[in-house]
Amino acid sequence: MIYLDDMHEGDTSVLGPIHVTREEALDFARKYDPQPFHLDDAAAAAHPFFKKLSISGWQTCGYAMRLMVDEMQARAIQSLGSPGIDSIRWLKPVYPGDALTLESETREVRVSRSRPEMGSARRTYVFRNQDGEAVMTMEATGLFATRPR
Amino acid sequence: MIYLDDMHEGDTSVLGPIHVTREEALDFARKYDPQPFHLDDAAAAAHPFFKKLSISGWQTCGYAMRLMVDEMQARAIQSLGSPGIDSIRWLKPVYPGDALTLESETREVRVSRSRPEMGSARRTYVFRNQDGEAVMTMEATGLFATRPR
Repeated sequence: MIYLDDMHEGDTSVLGPIHVTREEALDFARKYDPQPFHLDDAAAAAHPFFKKLSISGWQTCGYAMRLMVDEMQARAIQSLGSPGIDSIRWLKPVYPGDALTLESETREVRVSRSRPEMGSARRTYVFRNQDGEAVMTMEATGLFATRPR
Repeated sequence: MIYLDDMHEGDTSVLGPIHVTREEALDFARKYDPQPFHLDDAAAAAHPFFKKLSISGWQTCGYAMRLMVDEMQARAIQSLGSPGIDSIRWLKPVYPGDALTLESETREVRVSRSRPEMGSARRTYVFRNQDGEAVMTMEATGLFATRPR
């Protein structure tokens, strides 16, 4: 099992790729972000930036999360959730057919003073498409259990 | 139609409620955030904070977005998407059965210098449950078309 004790400033990882499908793009957009440029090819073609049907930025976050959770489960990382996010930048559109790879770097690891059985790790992320372009950056904090003593 | 020209610092709105269902919670968690405390009642009961099966924080963002998009479409607000988010804080768990209401306040409205046909509005949001508790806060920037001249 991997605990907070095993995480260190400067740690890096690369996860993925995860594949974006048109079916999932439309399903997510219908439920959570039914803006025309996420649902309709003609509306997307008329948009000043998107040009083609692109996925919701929130779905991009969902794909990043899925890669993180698959990694946590593969390595038995003792995650307790997250208190929040300090920055998200949606830099380029993500399109159905894209394959996304998530790079992370750990910036700070801190044991909780009031609850030493847990602590937080702050990480920065770069999500890249199959052409190596950064489509999203993110700064996030995760809570993790410390190793039982 | 509502353009950036119609948005002003200090504008406030209240949207919702939107209702969280167990079926949608499990569907989202399976696809994007399959951590045990979002999928399994017993794992959630054992978690130090959640106590009951709670939804993914990313799904909470999705519900907030859905309220915003429904409002944009009801009022023909000329949204062009978003460059990013400056802060998300997941303050309390959100449970299936909750009804969430989104409060917003506009903090800054700015026309683009390089592309005066559009501009940005920065807003702060508080998402509350049916007991009035803040479950999430967010600072987000949206891009909107300016009124054609």
